Amino acid sequence: MTDRVALVVGAGDAIGSAIMRKFAEHGFVVCGARRNGDKLQPLVKSLAAAGHSAHAFSCDARDEDAITGLFARIEEQIGALDVVVFNVGANVPMGILETDSRKFTKIWEMACFAGFLTGREAARYMCQRGRGSILFTGATASVRGAAGFAAFASAKHGLRALAQSMARELGPQNIHVAHIVIDAAVDTAWIAENFADAAALKEKDGIVNPDDLAANYVMLHEQPRNAWTFELDLRPWMERW
Amino acid sequence: MTDRVALVVGAGDAIGSAIMRKFAEHGFVVCGARRNGDKLQPLVKSLAAAGHSAHAFSCDARDEDAITGLFARIEEQIGALDVVVFNVGANVPMGILETDSRKFTKIWEMACFAGFLTGREAARYMCQRGRGSILFTGATASVRGAAGFAAFASAKHGLRALAQSMARELGPQNIHVAHIVIDAAVDTAWIAENFADAAALKEKDGIVNPDDLAANYVMLHEQPRNAWTFELDLRPWMERW
Amino acid sequence: MTDRVALVVGAGDAIGSAIMRKFAEHGFVVCGARRNGDKLQPLVKSLAAAGHSAHAFSCDARDEDAITGLFARIEEQIGALDVVVFNVGANVPMGILETDSRKFTKIWEMACFAGFLTGREAARYMCQRGRGSILFTGATASVRGAAGFAAFASAKHGLRALAQSMARELGPQNIHVAHIVIDAAVDTAWIAENFADAAALKEKDGIVNPDDLAANYVMLHEQPRNAWTFELDLRPWMERW
Amino acid sequence: MTDRVALVVGAGDAIGSAIMRKFAEHGFVVCGARRNGDKLQPLVKSLAAAGHSAHAFSCDARDEDAITGLFARIEEQIGALDVVVFNVGANVPMGILETDSRKFTKIWEMACFAGFLTGREAARYMCQRGRGSILFTGATASVRGAAGFAAFASAKHGLRALAQSMARELGPQNIHVAHIVIDAAVDTAWIAENFADAAALKEKDGIVNPDDLAANYVMLHEQPRNAWTFELDLRPWMERW
Repeated sequence: MTDRVALVVGAGDAIGSAIMRKFAEHGFVVCGARRNGDKLQPLVKSLAAAGHSAHAFSCDARDEDAITGLFARIEEQIGALDVVVFNVGANVPMGILETDSRKFTKIWEMACFAGFLTGREAARYMCQRGRGSILFTGATASVRGAAGFAAFASAKHGLRALAQSMARELGPQNIHVAHIVIDAAVDTAWIAENFADAAALKEKDGIVNPDDLAANYVMLHEQPRNAWTFELDLRPWMERW
Repeated sequence: MTDRVALVVGAGDAIGSAIMRKFAEHGFVVCGARRNGDKLQPLVKSLAAAGHSAHAFSCDARDEDAITGLFARIEEQIGALDVVVFNVGANVPMGILETDSRKFTKIWEMACFAGFLTGREAARYMCQRGRGSILFTGATASVRGAAGFAAFASAKHGLRALAQSMARELGPQNIHVAHIVIDAAVDTAWIAENFADAAALKEKDGIVNPDDLAANYVMLHEQPRNAWTFELDLRPWMERW
Repeated sequence: MTDRVALVVGAGDAIGSAIMRKFAEHGFVVCGARRNGDKLQPLVKSLAAAGHSAHAFSCDARDEDAITGLFARIEEQIGALDVVVFNVGANVPMGILETDSRKFTKIWEMACFAGFLTGREAARYMCQRGRGSILFTGATASVRGAAGFAAFASAKHGLRALAQSMARELGPQNIHVAHIVIDAAVDTAWIAENFADAAALKEKDGIVNPDDLAANYVMLHEQPRNAWTFELDLRPWMERW
Repeated sequence: MTDRVALVVGAGDAIGSAIMRKFAEHGFVVCGARRNGDKLQPLVKSLAAAGHSAHAFSCDARDEDAITGLFARIEEQIGALDVVVFNVGANVPMGILETDSRKFTKIWEMACFAGFLTGREAARYMCQRGRGSILFTGATASVRGAAGFAAFASAKHGLRALAQSMARELGPQNIHVAHIVIDAAVDTAWIAENFADAAALKEKDGIVNPDDLAANYVMLHEQPRNAWTFELDLRPWMERW
């Protein structure tokens, strides 16, 4: 129970898994939660094989009981959380007239409400101890509304405002809240399958590498408290923005 | 059925009612919707007495069927909507640890989701006709997350991103979408009752007058389409910001 | 000496002249200053023929003595200035490696330093009287730095920060400072000559009309002081942004 | 000539010196330039004593010939510059009516024009080699104009727009341009002497430590090019913002 513990909510195959790996390499016990936690078993095993301690959980991050249960279980059985990362994505472009209320709500539940549940639950434990970091993954849509992105931009702006409000409220309680704006495509299976140019981009570093992205989460957590960053943006050198 | 028609969703006693009055004075048939539409009867009568045409509706703006029904009824029985204003507020400050999921959700439903339902339904009718204005009321929290305002800022940022995305998507379809950032207290009964200094401020124009605020909504709707504004801010001369 | 007086510094053929016309139509005595004031004579005559009072001045707005002399002359001979508009442009795109220090400085002198001289001199007179408006013309480059626009964006951001600082400092002294962001091409001779598609755009309101633009300056000046706008953006309905 | 070389323009006692130290510790040959380069001798000696290579230069960063001469001398005699930091400050609050044109110009020359000269000269050498980092120090006034800060905010906004434009233009040439927003007081002699509470703040990490600040400059330079940051903010945990 003496090790530092990190949790990634929304531990997908690319970014979320890379964040888990990076914190593990920095000596953290890492926990990952996603809807089907079984999908994390290969990662857990490979981390264990490398001498790290890793745990996988199945959890629907939109479900308050599931989130409170997840935190309770980790805090009791694994250790006190030092850093919690919210990394659930929900980027589904659609025109405003095609956006039905179910989709609008679901995108918000995934990209914003689940972030609230995660961030508040993290704050509950961390405020008692007077330390910890809560890190949120943002996107271009976090800072810019665009045609065809009303639902996603609405949810991501909502998440950013949550993070900013929490940063201002919890900073003086020694809780570091930060928001990482990923302003470009990340090298994921989904991008590779759907965007033919992705492979070419990858060769010349034109697409974000999840491992290099993940390093920023560790860096933010390890910033000394006299110089904390709330927000930074990330994109490849050749990206137009 | 030849008159111009304006609808205010969230037609409260102060701002919403003032917007209705202002559009009525500019020759519009005005419709106001709020949870209890009966509360609008005095306004409807005073507008009628002054020779204007005004209608009141009871509608929970968070209820999709209620919103689609409201629009259908107005379009069928009153006329084609030229301008739709979304003006539902939900400013309830609370610390992040005191924000339960029910409150977080309700604030979002009122300040953001209802705006989506209203804006999308307006877009449905207006896109068919290739004209119209959709105006959203914003607040300081629309552009800044602050300690104690996580839920409200999250919802208002979400509404602003919705408006900005819609403006970019619908502008080229000749639909004018705009967002008014009210960055100060408005002269309402609630402010008068809860903030003792309000009366003093009012004497020296230190608090926003709903009628003067409302003039900006009419101005935005009447901008020629070669020079449309997406966003403007409003505050009294003596406000610190 | 009882009439309201408006001054436009940077009274070019398109926007500046349109602002003069619009204030004249609203009953103001209008003064226009540009490097070669003789070019304003046709406008002065046409305004006089329509019963308005108009004056033209030659003035290099980057020259402190010229600006202080201009203000002194108008205040003594024409009347107390109610509204001062700074409208000098300097949009010259160039790559960073092609930007020599003379060009960088000149663009700043025109787009920012001249705005400081104009704004401060206006503030000197207005602060004594405790009223007045100071309006600055901004551009896309005021809020976004772009490749090939380092010098222009630097100067326009500098002007915007000046305006914002002045708005915060002078608002409580009853001086209304505002910034108009023109986020699109305006219908000028230069655009017509250099961009072949301009005429086509004009037919469908795809390019900003100077007269419609100018109406916003009058609107801002006439806002009651309980609801002042610092910033609004303007672009045609079909503009991509 | 095989070592990596870093240059800090505006190498003052606190931040600039700390940046030199940090790059030296990471194996860079470090060069520092300030108006009176002699003041850097103690630092140069202490770095040399620790086995590092350091050089001091006297240079008025507002003087084009001085800057081009500085770069030429370093490139010829010391080595190819990998990273150039612009760190000249000029924070002098004053009311708009007290801001004479000489002060306004001087603040701009120091905080913005010198940054242009430095950034462009760095770009000249780096574009030929197709690599390098150019880092600019920003402040709260870079992103917010405030009462009493018209001149400083104008200059710092101008610097930020320069940096953003250069980032967009030079990124695709493999030059990393970034902007660090220091949104708080830094532990300098000036702060210690003028703000009595500074010492107390320092004890509880309430004031930015130059060494911890400097680490961010090294971090930005070492980001892999698939995930570059343009901007990050920094402030102590207890800072109100």
